[in-house]
Amino acid sequence: MLDIRLAKNSGFCFGVKRAIRLAEETSEKYGKATTIGPIIHNPQMVEKLSRVGVKAVDDIYQITESPVIIRSHGITQENLTILKDKNLEIVDATCPYVARAHEYAISADEENYHIIILGNPTHPEIIALKSRIHSNVQIWDSIEYIEKKEYTKVAVICQTTQNIENLHKLTSLLLPITKELRVFNTICDATNIRQSSSLALATATDLMIVIGGKNSSNTLMLAKLCSELTTTKHIEAANEISKVWFDEVIQKKGCIGLTAGASTPDWIILEIYNKIKAIVGYPNDFAQSIDEIPSYNEEPL
Amino acid sequence: MLDIRLAKNSGFCFGVKRAIRLAEETSEKYGKATTIGPIIHNPQMVEKLSRVGVKAVDDIYQITESPVIIRSHGITQENLTILKDKNLEIVDATCPYVARAHEYAISADEENYHIIILGNPTHPEIIALKSRIHSNVQIWDSIEYIEKKEYTKVAVICQTTQNIENLHKLTSLLLPITKELRVFNTICDATNIRQSSSLALATATDLMIVIGGKNSSNTLMLAKLCSELTTTKHIEAANEISKVWFDEVIQKKGCIGLTAGASTPDWIILEIYNKIKAIVGYPNDFAQSIDEIPSYNEEPL
Repeated sequence: MLDIRLAKNSGFCFGVKRAIRLAEETSEKYGKATTIGPIIHNPQMVEKLSRVGVKAVDDIYQITESPVIIRSHGITQENLTILKDKNLEIVDATCPYVARAHEYAISADEENYHIIILGNPTHPEIIALKSRIHSNVQIWDSIEYIEKKEYTKVAVICQTTQNIENLHKLTSLLLPITKELRVFNTICDATNIRQSSSLALATATDLMIVIGGKNSSNTLMLAKLCSELTTTKHIEAANEISKVWFDEVIQKKGCIGLTAGASTPDWIILEIYNKIKAIVGYPNDFAQSIDEIPSYNEEPL
Repeated sequence: MLDIRLAKNSGFCFGVKRAIRLAEETSEKYGKATTIGPIIHNPQMVEKLSRVGVKAVDDIYQITESPVIIRSHGITQENLTILKDKNLEIVDATCPYVARAHEYAISADEENYHIIILGNPTHPEIIALKSRIHSNVQIWDSIEYIEKKEYTKVAVICQTTQNIENLHKLTSLLLPITKELRVFNTICDATNIRQSSSLALATATDLMIVIGGKNSSNTLMLAKLCSELTTTKHIEAANEISKVWFDEVIQKKGCIGLTAGASTPDWIILEIYNKIKAIVGYPNDFAQSIDEIPSYNEEPL
C-alpha cells in the first residue's frame, strides 16, 4: 500500500517559534510592528503576519516608528546602532543560538584570533555576524580550498544551519597550518537532528517532498542532501505540486516522504500532505492537524 | 648503480640539540651533572655524556647534589617542586616546544576546559604534561573510540611527536559532540618535516634503515610509517646490521634509504652509513662527516 510519511523534527525550530511568538505578541500589543527584512524565510508566514500589522521593510531608513522587531537571523551592529540612535523601541527576536555565535565572535575578536566564518557570505545571519568582528575575518563557503599560510590563532564560527561535514572539511584544512585552532561549533542541533531524520526517511522512500522557502539555507541544504538519496522536489506551497511527480510511486505502491525546513509553518505542511493524499487516491482521508500525519520511526516501512 | 641516500631533516631536532648543548656546557662548568631519566632517548649519547660526568638516575630521591639537568621531555610538576625544595641548582633543558604545551595546558586548565591529551600515556613527556593539569583530563592514545558525551568546552593538546593523522581522527570524533573545541596543535614541525622527508625517500627505495632508540616514540613512528611503504629495519647502532638484509638490493642494484629519529646523534648515522657502504661493496668510499652522505631531493633516483 502506498505510504506517506513526515520526517520527525520537521518544520519550525525553537528560534523561529520564538520569533513568530514575539511578532504576534508585539502586533497584539501595538497593533503594528516593522521587521527589517522578512521575519523568517517563509513568504506565507510573512503574508499571514502582515494581515495583523507586521510589515517587513528592506531598508532600515524606511523605519520611522516603533516597535521594530529584529528577526531571528539578527541584524548588523551598524543597523542596531541606527535603530538605537532613532530611540525606537526594539523587540529582539534574534535566535538565542545566533546571539551566542555573536558573543563568541566578539570574544574571539577581542582575543586577536584570525576568525573564519563557515557560512554563506550573502546570508543575513552571516552578514550580521561578520559586522561584529573588527579585525581579521574571512568567510569560508564550503569550497575545498584554503590559503596555505601559517596561522598562530584561528577561531572558527559556523552559520547555525551549516552541515557538520563542511566543518570537518574546514578543520582538516586548518589543523596542519594552525598552532591554535578554536572551533565554536555553533551549528544548531535542531538543524542536525532535522537533517538526520530527513535523510533516514529519504533512504526509505521513492520520492521526497522538501517544503520551505526557496531562499531558506537550511531548506536548500535539506533538498540537496535528500536529492543525493532519492528523487526530490523542493516546494514552497501546495500550488507548486505537479500530479505527474507521483505517477511512478502510485504505480509501484511505494513511499512518499515529506520534510520541511526550520521556517516552514505547520499549516503549509498540512495543506501539502492533504493535497498529496488527494492526488494519490485518498481524497477522504485528510489530516486535521500536523500531529495526525504518520511520522517515520526509522523502522522498515 | 646501487645508491644509498639519507633522508633530509634526519636526526637531532632543535630541542635535542639544545638539551645536549646544555648538558655539555653544564658538565664543562661543574665537572658533573645529574639528569632524571636519560637526557634523550638514545643510549649511545647517554653513554657518551656519562664519560664527561653526566649521569642519569631513575629516582628523583637519588639526587642529592647540584646541578640537576631537566631533560628535553620535561619533568612532572611534583618532581620540579621536590628539586626546588632541595635547593638544588636546576638547568632546564625542557624542549621549548614541550614547555609551550605545558603553558597551553595550564591556561586551558585555568579556563575550565575538559582537556584531552593526544599521546602515549606512559611517555615521560605526557606524564609531565598531565601533571600540570588539576581538573578534568584524559589521554587519548590514537584509538578509534571516544566516549559519546556532550562537552561544552574541550581543549586538545598533542604530544610533540604525534602524527597529524591522529589529530584529524580525534577532532573528527570531538567536533559533533563539543560546543567549543580548542585544538593546540603542539605537534612539532621538526617531526612532521622529518616524517615527510623520510616517507618521500621510502617510496623511492628497496630498503629503509631507520636509526634511533628502540624506546624513542618518534623513531618508532618513523619505522612504522616507512614499513608501510617498503622493507624497513629499525636499528639503534651499527652492530645490529645484518649483511643478509642487503642481498636483494645488491643483486638488483637498487636503492637503500637512511633516516634517523630526533634523538639520534650524527656520529651514529655516519658509522652506519660507512658500514653499509662496506657491505654493499664500496669499502674505500667512506664519508668523513654526515654532510658528505648524499641526501634525497625527492627527484627520481
